[in-house]
Amino acid sequence: MASTIPKYGSDGLAGFYAKVDELEKLFIDRLGDAVKIPSISAYADRRKDVFEMSEWVAAKMRAVGIDVRLKSLGKQQNAELELPPLVLGRYGKDPEKPTVLVYCHYDVQPASFEDGWKHEPFKMTVEESGRLCGRGTSDDKGPLVGWINMIEAFQKAGLEVPANLVFCFEGMEETGSFGLREALEDEADKYFSDIDVVCIADVVWVSNEQISIPQGLRGIIFYLVTITGAKQDAHSGGFGGQISEPMVDMVNIMSSLVDSNGKILIPGIYDNVQHVTEKEYQSYQKLNISEESLYGGTGGRSLYDNQADALIARWKKPSLSLHRIENALPGAGAVTSIPAKLVGKFSIRTVPFMKADEIDQIVRKYIQERFDGLGSKNDIEIEAYPNDWFFEDASHWNYQAAIKATKNVWGVDPAMTCEGGSIPIALDFKRILKKNVLLLPVGRPTDGHHSTNEKLDKINYINAIKLYGSYLQEAGTLWRKSNGKV
Amino acid sequence: MASTIPKYGSDGLAGFYAKVDELEKLFIDRLGDAVKIPSISAYADRRKDVFEMSEWVAAKMRAVGIDVRLKSLGKQQNAELELPPLVLGRYGKDPEKPTVLVYCHYDVQPASFEDGWKHEPFKMTVEESGRLCGRGTSDDKGPLVGWINMIEAFQKAGLEVPANLVFCFEGMEETGSFGLREALEDEADKYFSDIDVVCIADVVWVSNEQISIPQGLRGIIFYLVTITGAKQDAHSGGFGGQISEPMVDMVNIMSSLVDSNGKILIPGIYDNVQHVTEKEYQSYQKLNISEESLYGGTGGRSLYDNQADALIARWKKPSLSLHRIENALPGAGAVTSIPAKLVGKFSIRTVPFMKADEIDQIVRKYIQERFDGLGSKNDIEIEAYPNDWFFEDASHWNYQAAIKATKNVWGVDPAMTCEGGSIPIALDFKRILKKNVLLLPVGRPTDGHHSTNEKLDKINYINAIKLYGSYLQEAGTLWRKSNGKV
Repeated sequence: MASTIPKYGSDGLAGFYAKVDELEKLFIDRLGDAVKIPSISAYADRRKDVFEMSEWVAAKMRAVGIDVRLKSLGKQQNAELELPPLVLGRYGKDPEKPTVLVYCHYDVQPASFEDGWKHEPFKMTVEESGRLCGRGTSDDKGPLVGWINMIEAFQKAGLEVPANLVFCFEGMEETGSFGLREALEDEADKYFSDIDVVCIADVVWVSNEQISIPQGLRGIIFYLVTITGAKQDAHSGGFGGQISEPMVDMVNIMSSLVDSNGKILIPGIYDNVQHVTEKEYQSYQKLNISEESLYGGTGGRSLYDNQADALIARWKKPSLSLHRIENALPGAGAVTSIPAKLVGKFSIRTVPFMKADEIDQIVRKYIQERFDGLGSKNDIEIEAYPNDWFFEDASHWNYQAAIKATKNVWGVDPAMTCEGGSIPIALDFKRILKKNVLLLPVGRPTDGHHSTNEKLDKINYINAIKLYGSYLQEAGTLWRKSNGKV
Repeated sequence: MASTIPKYGSDGLAGFYAKVDELEKLFIDRLGDAVKIPSISAYADRRKDVFEMSEWVAAKMRAVGIDVRLKSLGKQQNAELELPPLVLGRYGKDPEKPTVLVYCHYDVQPASFEDGWKHEPFKMTVEESGRLCGRGTSDDKGPLVGWINMIEAFQKAGLEVPANLVFCFEGMEETGSFGLREALEDEADKYFSDIDVVCIADVVWVSNEQISIPQGLRGIIFYLVTITGAKQDAHSGGFGGQISEPMVDMVNIMSSLVDSNGKILIPGIYDNVQHVTEKEYQSYQKLNISEESLYGGTGGRSLYDNQADALIARWKKPSLSLHRIENALPGAGAVTSIPAKLVGKFSIRTVPFMKADEIDQIVRKYIQERFDGLGSKNDIEIEAYPNDWFFEDASHWNYQAAIKATKNVWGVDPAMTCEGGSIPIALDFKRILKKNVLLLPVGRPTDGHHSTNEKLDKINYINAIKLYGSYLQEAGTLWRKSNGKV
């Protein structure tokens, strides 16, 4: 792509950039070493590898002068398994520089060659095309190692790292982030008390062709609707017609929530949804997003055939998805049984400025009234698990620094985009630390994060190191400007 | 119960009855021997025991003079496992007697002591109360051995068995009756060519308190509705609102079929349903059925609180039950995924005089129109598997003989009842052999056929032997009368 030529010099970091290029082999080998440790957090018998990975990361951090602290997170919920530590670190204490908290994770998704990998997943293969292939290269070992590389390149170029850094590297991201939230709460006024902003380096561009910075994430309210009839499944021959069937109520409730065109049928849901301006619409229409990125995952079942409409449906409008209806009693009965207890699962993705509390009240009232209207002899119970939407202020120097750095390194302005999904840790950082939270992408959406043949393009790995340096440089400049220090 | 005193003599079989009582210990020991062989047809590693059981049955049959033939059924569908043989047998060729085909099965449901049995399931325990406890005592080894005992008792009483007998003992009834239908078709004009009627000895009374003979069984049309969207599950964050969701269509379709009061919403379904007369209604109201039998299985969720209404809902009216909605793609996705392909399963229980073909056309048309009205981008496919209802002519001498025999042995007129479920083999015998098919109960509904602690009350076991003898005696008399031989 045309945008891969760094515009060395615009931020005064030509020496740093040159050093990064010079150290390319070292940095690639380092990522290879990181990939070698199969730090799969999902499997108990790999937990020792996750611990080994934490030691590896700590050692590499110490090697560049980071003051490391391993914070124990105790035992895993409902298991006797020890959680891998949070690898915390501090680098620099200059009052003339901003302090940036960097989040990455050192655990990976499961992978085994037999699943259809072209190369061994835990032995990084550098393909001729420049693809660095292996589990964790893009998610999230490449970004994590990139920060350490960045410090080393500054040092070897004889330059100061332009910001103070606080690191928070997690080992359970792929398996529920157990203990992270509590640790953030615990350290908010201690280890993290002096940070100015947060940078989460665990996201990807909006499409392979469109360099971007996501500014918004939809929220999610996850619902469990339990409908209970008899104490056990009944035989549909013996009891069909005589017994009240929970499934009948369940499909009635579920069918009342959303229509086949994606319109949510619950009155009031759309009341506080932010209006999409014509300007936004046009900007979405202009994004360089391939047909594959836009429609590939929909398998020809997209409700919209226009780019802006499709993106707005994903990013700027609430949606209600029906996930499944599960038999809640152990031991599935005969195929012709009448299930006695069912759990229906659905979720609502929320956007600015929907209020989770209000939405939840509206949804519960709507379902309860619908159920009451059925005259059913069954019982209903509704549970909700809300995670709010995230929308960050991009005029903040934290975002502006990232935008400038992207232009410096990739030669293009990044698109300000959203993601339809939720990233609960982004919200946690925001809520607990009360600082501007930047999501800074490195990889591409087809890097294969949670599937086979994960890779990170070499250009993305090397440019990430440069991007981190330039981001800190621009952040320093803008921070000083905004604090009247220049 | 008051009805346990046989009215010896009314059918001239006092000597036979006395001999049955005299041989009680022998007969109970014989059932104990049968229970010892764990002939579980569901488990491949028990298949040898099912074969051993077939040999045991054949040996006992030969010992009383039955001419036995083991009919091989080949290999099990989709498995290299040999099917246990049909144990066929013939006893008597007197042209002055009717020929009765008797069906039982010699395989049993799985059982293991650890499941919560009071006694070892494959070691019959005779409790002081007279309960013969063990897997298969009631389903269906007790009835099967009863027929052999009956012949022996006639012989030892110096009496002729009053009918010619053709036996068809199956070894796969609990596991799909593989091969039975084909064998019946194969032998219809050969081994079974001269039979007059069929007696299936594999049912129970309508309730513990009400001796009964079931005359009708509901049919079942089992439906699979497949709705297909994308090629794979989508992430509800990334695609929720943009993608067409099969689950939305599925719950819409399912919710249009039946309401929470059990009323089927498909127009035309009830058109050919036989009217329940006031006389029938009153007869149902008078049946001696406990609250537990009537409402126990509904766990307080019965749609009717009146005996006749509840029984009519089970026996005389169609019902539509929604069984489940399953993700049709392998590997369940994340809990917040949007399933790409779903199979909805429901069934319609049919009653006289609904026509399966017509019902199926109505149902398909209704679902297709409903789906078309949704304007969905998904695809739908409908499959149906019909089994017709069964309703037998109780004025036939086959039923009349059973009714008289029940009165002779138990001292009460049996109630003519129905069952809400289907017994496919009853239909197969009826359809293929084109003879009157009698379902002759021996045990009680709480015998625990498919659960732990199966038992057969001793009185039921001994009276079954007497009942079979009296039934053949009455059948002979009525057959000769109806054929002008008396």
